[in-house]
Amino acid sequence: MKSNLHHILPRSGVLRSHSTYYKPQIKTFSGTPWRYIRTTGMSDKELSAIRIDRDRLWKDLHTTCEWGKGERWGENATDIGMSRLASSDADKQARDWFVKTTQDLGCDVNVDAMGNIFAVRPGMDNSAPPTYAGSHMDTQPTGGRYDGILGVHAGIEALKTMKDNDMETEYPTGVINWTNEEGARFPISMISSGVWAGAIPLEKAYNLREVGSGNATQKSELERIGYLGPLEANHKANPIAAHFELHIEQGPILEASGGKIGAVEGVQAYKWHTITVNGRDCHTGTTDFQNRSDAMLTAAKLILHSHNRASEAGCLASTGILTLKPGSTNTVPGVVQFSLDIRSKEDAALLQLEETLKSEFSKIAQGEEIGGLNARGTKGRGCTVKWQLDTDSPATTFHEDCIKCVEESVSDMLGTSEGPNVQRMTSGAGHDSVYTARRAPTSMIFVPCRDGISHNPAEYCSQEDCGNGAQVLLGAMLRYDRLRASRKT
Amino acid sequence: MKSNLHHILPRSGVLRSHSTYYKPQIKTFSGTPWRYIRTTGMSDKELSAIRIDRDRLWKDLHTTCEWGKGERWGENATDIGMSRLASSDADKQARDWFVKTTQDLGCDVNVDAMGNIFAVRPGMDNSAPPTYAGSHMDTQPTGGRYDGILGVHAGIEALKTMKDNDMETEYPTGVINWTNEEGARFPISMISSGVWAGAIPLEKAYNLREVGSGNATQKSELERIGYLGPLEANHKANPIAAHFELHIEQGPILEASGGKIGAVEGVQAYKWHTITVNGRDCHTGTTDFQNRSDAMLTAAKLILHSHNRASEAGCLASTGILTLKPGSTNTVPGVVQFSLDIRSKEDAALLQLEETLKSEFSKIAQGEEIGGLNARGTKGRGCTVKWQLDTDSPATTFHEDCIKCVEESVSDMLGTSEGPNVQRMTSGAGHDSVYTARRAPTSMIFVPCRDGISHNPAEYCSQEDCGNGAQVLLGAMLRYDRLRASRKT
Ligand SMILES: [Zn+2]
Ligand SMILES: [Zn+2]
Repeated sequence: MKSNLHHILPRSGVLRSHSTYYKPQIKTFSGTPWRYIRTTGMSDKELSAIRIDRDRLWKDLHTTCEWGKGERWGENATDIGMSRLASSDADKQARDWFVKTTQDLGCDVNVDAMGNIFAVRPGMDNSAPPTYAGSHMDTQPTGGRYDGILGVHAGIEALKTMKDNDMETEYPTGVINWTNEEGARFPISMISSGVWAGAIPLEKAYNLREVGSGNATQKSELERIGYLGPLEANHKANPIAAHFELHIEQGPILEASGGKIGAVEGVQAYKWHTITVNGRDCHTGTTDFQNRSDAMLTAAKLILHSHNRASEAGCLASTGILTLKPGSTNTVPGVVQFSLDIRSKEDAALLQLEETLKSEFSKIAQGEEIGGLNARGTKGRGCTVKWQLDTDSPATTFHEDCIKCVEESVSDMLGTSEGPNVQRMTSGAGHDSVYTARRAPTSMIFVPCRDGISHNPAEYCSQEDCGNGAQVLLGAMLRYDRLRASRKT
Repeated sequence: MKSNLHHILPRSGVLRSHSTYYKPQIKTFSGTPWRYIRTTGMSDKELSAIRIDRDRLWKDLHTTCEWGKGERWGENATDIGMSRLASSDADKQARDWFVKTTQDLGCDVNVDAMGNIFAVRPGMDNSAPPTYAGSHMDTQPTGGRYDGILGVHAGIEALKTMKDNDMETEYPTGVINWTNEEGARFPISMISSGVWAGAIPLEKAYNLREVGSGNATQKSELERIGYLGPLEANHKANPIAAHFELHIEQGPILEASGGKIGAVEGVQAYKWHTITVNGRDCHTGTTDFQNRSDAMLTAAKLILHSHNRASEAGCLASTGILTLKPGSTNTVPGVVQFSLDIRSKEDAALLQLEETLKSEFSKIAQGEEIGGLNARGTKGRGCTVKWQLDTDSPATTFHEDCIKCVEESVSDMLGTSEGPNVQRMTSGAGHDSVYTARRAPTSMIFVPCRDGISHNPAEYCSQEDCGNGAQVLLGAMLRYDRLRASRKT
């Protein structure tokens, strides 16, 4: 099972130093000595003339989606979801395709200890780290064809386009396939970029057991499919110069506003809490409102209030889980637990919202009138509220250099950098770029997905939007390469 | 197993006609011919001098509670809950005690086809049906010592007191133990009084299977314990002149207001609905409020609104069950189902509330501002609301004659019919009296229970309150007997 992995790794099994590792291997084109185009010499107009092959991208993407097919949801050939869990046999097939395709392009391909695959197309100066596109090829068990997969394919398409146009970048460029981004099989999301960034210990990641009844660990499964690589999974041993990630938005904002591209400025901060409301069970028929400690009515008020306060503060608040006890039509619940997911672009705003809600939830539960919530009903005997913090993820701010390269690349493609077709956005969900941003300039490119639906077989991004995204990704990588060179001089 | 049942039934197995059936069997006292006291000849003052034995009542009640003991909750000898499911071995032990005790009092004891036990102490004119006390000796699996049990014991204590005082009532008086009132084992509550009243078919009741994994039916278990009686379970074959039921309030109103006795005017109407809110799943991080169809937020608004409208209308509204899908912290739920239990003293008021909520729920779900609910938050894309009616129980109005007898009996006991010690109340929960009220004048007597707790091992009614209730029950039965006689003339 490991044969195809071994031949892509340095024979010694030890990574060569950067100064020699990214040394160009191909210096001829069609057998003839040939001078590459360099980004440094290109005008904006020349840069904008480098165009990806939209049909090839579309075809490649749906080719690899033959491995790990999920549920059919429509009548077209590609109206089929994905179920390609990390380190599954289908994931191995997709990885093998990735390795073969990028090697055929002339890339050096290395796999690290977390199974992250780094395919690097050499540039002029291979002593510095590559400018990367990166995303993931694993999916949710009932996922779609675009989340993650599009970003990896667009990176490969960018490298193919560079080759087609006889370009030699100033610095190496590459594409990364991060392992188990979804956290659907081994239940920590973005875990392998997290290990690379030094945020998650390797041992913790290795020992993570698959969800369900199986006994496989992340390590055992990487080994099984031949993708437990010798390269250290660490940003110091294997640095990144920049990380650009094309991704479907997974939300409705671009579609609703008619925008084509989102230049992503960062990722929201979020905190997950479990809120417990304690009241007292009583009979729904024999207990008047004055004498109730109704945990469900109180929870309803708190959920509505969290929405109102988040609205006012430009934040988000959501309840996705709610359980109650004892759970009988004619018993007022004595205990309700619910999840409270609060998000904001700014850590400070999130903290402010959290503190406001902590103070006001208790008062509302005791029957105080806040926000008109107790104005019309009957004040009961009151409940108590407990908070438990489950997850705390601070805000991520992407790098202005990268964001600007994305915006300018949209301008290259569309002829304008402003206007309705590009908008700065904040990602609501986590991505591998959250971890790369800790160690390297990073930005993301969002494209619309139909009805904002994701993590669903019917997730859909049109061929046009996939192509737009890949074109912007290519342009951003080339512009960043030129920017790096300009700063060196 | 049936031996003790057979000897209490008429030898023919056929109920004798009323004209002969309740013929007094004992006309001597201590072996000496003896003249009974008749209610007709008694003044209010004389009536009020007939006092139950509060210690005997308390002792008897805790004696039978040795059969079917539940969970201990306190340090006193009787601080133990009950787990005496209908037609269990423990229920048989309690029934056997009931039969022996009432037979020893000189009662004729008959069992009907639903296992309801009718113990009748003959009066002067035994051609008319008896004035009954009635309640139930079965309990919830985690029930207490007073719900139902107190009412039966108080009825027996009333008959014992009549005997102690050498009273001969104008008409027969009796006590009924209704089968499976709780519906905890065979899952329809008040089922046996329901069959008696002609509201529930006998076959349906017989075929009812026990909850859980067992195969026993109500009929097979009655047969097993020897209480499948030959008497037709029907109000025509076995009529009742009046039904008085002493019961713990099972709510906090008496305790909170310092009241001693509730004279129950009727039982609330109630309707149980399942409300389904349909929105759309989306990611909590990537979907702004404008673009959500948040079924949980909508459900929270509807639950709060139902409370507000019920408050305004003097009705009750409660949600005891709520489930949502898909149930993940970072997914806004697309579907929420919740129970809505609405109650009112008046059928018309309940219908009005239901119609108001049906109209307004849909509007609120669509984002309309009703009752200030959408004033501060963000209007989303809206949800839809479906209603399903699960249970419709109209209001029961008890008989003014019976209610007055209860009030006057409180006056006999306490020296005043008005004031804080007696209050007219509406029962929030169902009782066998709901069905007897369809076929005979009925009222109930409520006594306080600590913290309003019931259907719980820690259910508690003090010896004083148990005694008060039994005293009022006796007085009401005697007053009703006198009233019947006065109307005949
Ligand atoms: Zn993704
Ligand atoms: Zn009861």
